[in-house]
Amino acid sequence: MPGKDKKRSNSGEDDLIELMKSIIGSKPRSLITGIGDDCAVIENDNSGSDTLVTTDLLVEGSHFKLDWASPYQIGWKAMAASVSDIAAMGGRPTFAFISLGIRTHGRDYFVKSFYEGIQAAAEKYNITVAGGDTVRSDLVVANVTLMGKTARGAAITRKGASAGDIISVTSTCGDSLAGLEILKYLTKTGTRPSTYQKQLIERHSAPTPSVKAGLAASASGCVKAMMDLSDGILIDLPRLCKINGTGAKINTSNLPVSPELERWAAEAKQPACEYAIKGGEDFNLLVISDAAKHDQVSNLMQEIGVELSIIGEITGENNSCVIVSDKGKETPFSDSGFKHF
Amino acid sequence: MPGKDKKRSNSGEDDLIELMKSIIGSKPRSLITGIGDDCAVIENDNSGSDTLVTTDLLVEGSHFKLDWASPYQIGWKAMAASVSDIAAMGGRPTFAFISLGIRTHGRDYFVKSFYEGIQAAAEKYNITVAGGDTVRSDLVVANVTLMGKTARGAAITRKGASAGDIISVTSTCGDSLAGLEILKYLTKTGTRPSTYQKQLIERHSAPTPSVKAGLAASASGCVKAMMDLSDGILIDLPRLCKINGTGAKINTSNLPVSPELERWAAEAKQPACEYAIKGGEDFNLLVISDAAKHDQVSNLMQEIGVELSIIGEITGENNSCVIVSDKGKETPFSDSGFKHF
Repeated sequence: MPGKDKKRSNSGEDDLIELMKSIIGSKPRSLITGIGDDCAVIENDNSGSDTLVTTDLLVEGSHFKLDWASPYQIGWKAMAASVSDIAAMGGRPTFAFISLGIRTHGRDYFVKSFYEGIQAAAEKYNITVAGGDTVRSDLVVANVTLMGKTARGAAITRKGASAGDIISVTSTCGDSLAGLEILKYLTKTGTRPSTYQKQLIERHSAPTPSVKAGLAASASGCVKAMMDLSDGILIDLPRLCKINGTGAKINTSNLPVSPELERWAAEAKQPACEYAIKGGEDFNLLVISDAAKHDQVSNLMQEIGVELSIIGEITGENNSCVIVSDKGKETPFSDSGFKHF
Repeated sequence: MPGKDKKRSNSGEDDLIELMKSIIGSKPRSLITGIGDDCAVIENDNSGSDTLVTTDLLVEGSHFKLDWASPYQIGWKAMAASVSDIAAMGGRPTFAFISLGIRTHGRDYFVKSFYEGIQAAAEKYNITVAGGDTVRSDLVVANVTLMGKTARGAAITRKGASAGDIISVTSTCGDSLAGLEILKYLTKTGTRPSTYQKQLIERHSAPTPSVKAGLAASASGCVKAMMDLSDGILIDLPRLCKINGTGAKINTSNLPVSPELERWAAEAKQPACEYAIKGGEDFNLLVISDAAKHDQVSNLMQEIGVELSIIGEITGENNSCVIVSDKGKETPFSDSGFKHF
């Protein structure tokens, strides 16, 4: 489970952000968005553009295990997680800065393979790796700082949602969590993955966030707020609601689920929708759109091959997120039984 | 010793930079300087300025020990190391992005104290902390990505030195190394530091790079190349020479040494100049200036209270750095006996 595996809890991380904000002083006028969103947004002097910046730290044991993640995959995924943050603001990634801490033993092989993963992702997303720092560490750690760009004032933040808005997602949910479970299962049993299992593992190990989906959301003119699903709907949606002073209703039967996840969920004897609502690291986008104009974004997404799935709506009830079952039963997120990670 | 303590070796780190460069593809036109200098330099669209970016990763056990570095000091020093990189290009720091990995035990105290150190440095250098990531880690790790600014084309890189240029430094050398030795000595013997020892410890634990010195170097119009001394003259100067295809001669008797370092060196029965040439983390600037115009930079520095000390000159001998003793004896850096760290 991503929450547990990442050794983060919703309240813990959010408390830390509040603590940091209380220590860090006021922000200058050129900093449009600071701590607490997917990216910082900085207004450039005399140019029609804004700069986006995001930074993500991945630590061995907390975010990945060397038992089932190759250096190449760690590099790819570190980049993908940051690309997802840029996409979540409707931006294009530009320059990356990579820090890597590694053991002395096997260092050169690790650096080579890790940077090949970094560079493969950089090429896919048209990013230039412009700097880095490589140091000795007894634990493998990788930090990616990624810069990006939007037109002046065009960044979509987490703030802007209001009651009645439509909540949708840009791809299937829960695949990464299933992929991680399969990796653990294979390691434990010593078995080999079947074809469908390989597909889920791939979605966990080499996620492909969609920059185009973020750009389409921005171009549509009807997306009021957006964020990427890095920790899963159950953790991320309440964060968005808290910022906006709203609630949300999610219909489990509407959660988009891949056929591969359905198959794994059946084998694991768990409802597929449970993976979809609590699984993190799918790096798809949570899109909040004006209900009257939702077709605009839906059509634009379709043109670029992204199927936008409506999963619920924003409500006026402050901080109250509920799950609606296919039989119409409403359960608050906090009582959902999915919270223990 | 900083090299040993940082678990880096000159050849090791430089080999890694070459390996990274070979994997990372070509750079776009807007990236003026990429991997291998103190900062990346990015040309901003339609604005008269360039953006500088530097990233530094500090790891427990390699860069600091919790036995003698408080979370506040780790925060301050992480910022100072990055400020030094911006100063070394003649820039002004602007926005910082902080990643912190910490254990669960004592987490809130650590985060608070660490961020107070970060914020104290941010206030001193007029920096805004604009984003961050805090995660669980079994080893304390801190990454700072710092952005900065120069006028268009004004960044001073490591490249530009030629035979006959003057080499100078912006403050005394070797204090940080002596401070670290004293910390180790006090921990081992359980004794308390004397007043002069406290001063050296302070220079190790809370270094204060000079952004003004970098700006003065840039304004003087006669500084051809510059870098900050993070790993010490013995490691950093050959890096600069390699880039320029030059050599260098350093006169040990000209190395600026503080009275406090002289006192510690006498107690430790080591020549003070040995600390000055091999000590890292003083975060002063190594300035390469046109010999005919050196007074211009020297005078400008004096106006802002920085005493520029001439320590040697650039020579035409490719990759050959030599130390000249006060008796005129020349010893190549590689044979100096200072290399084993």
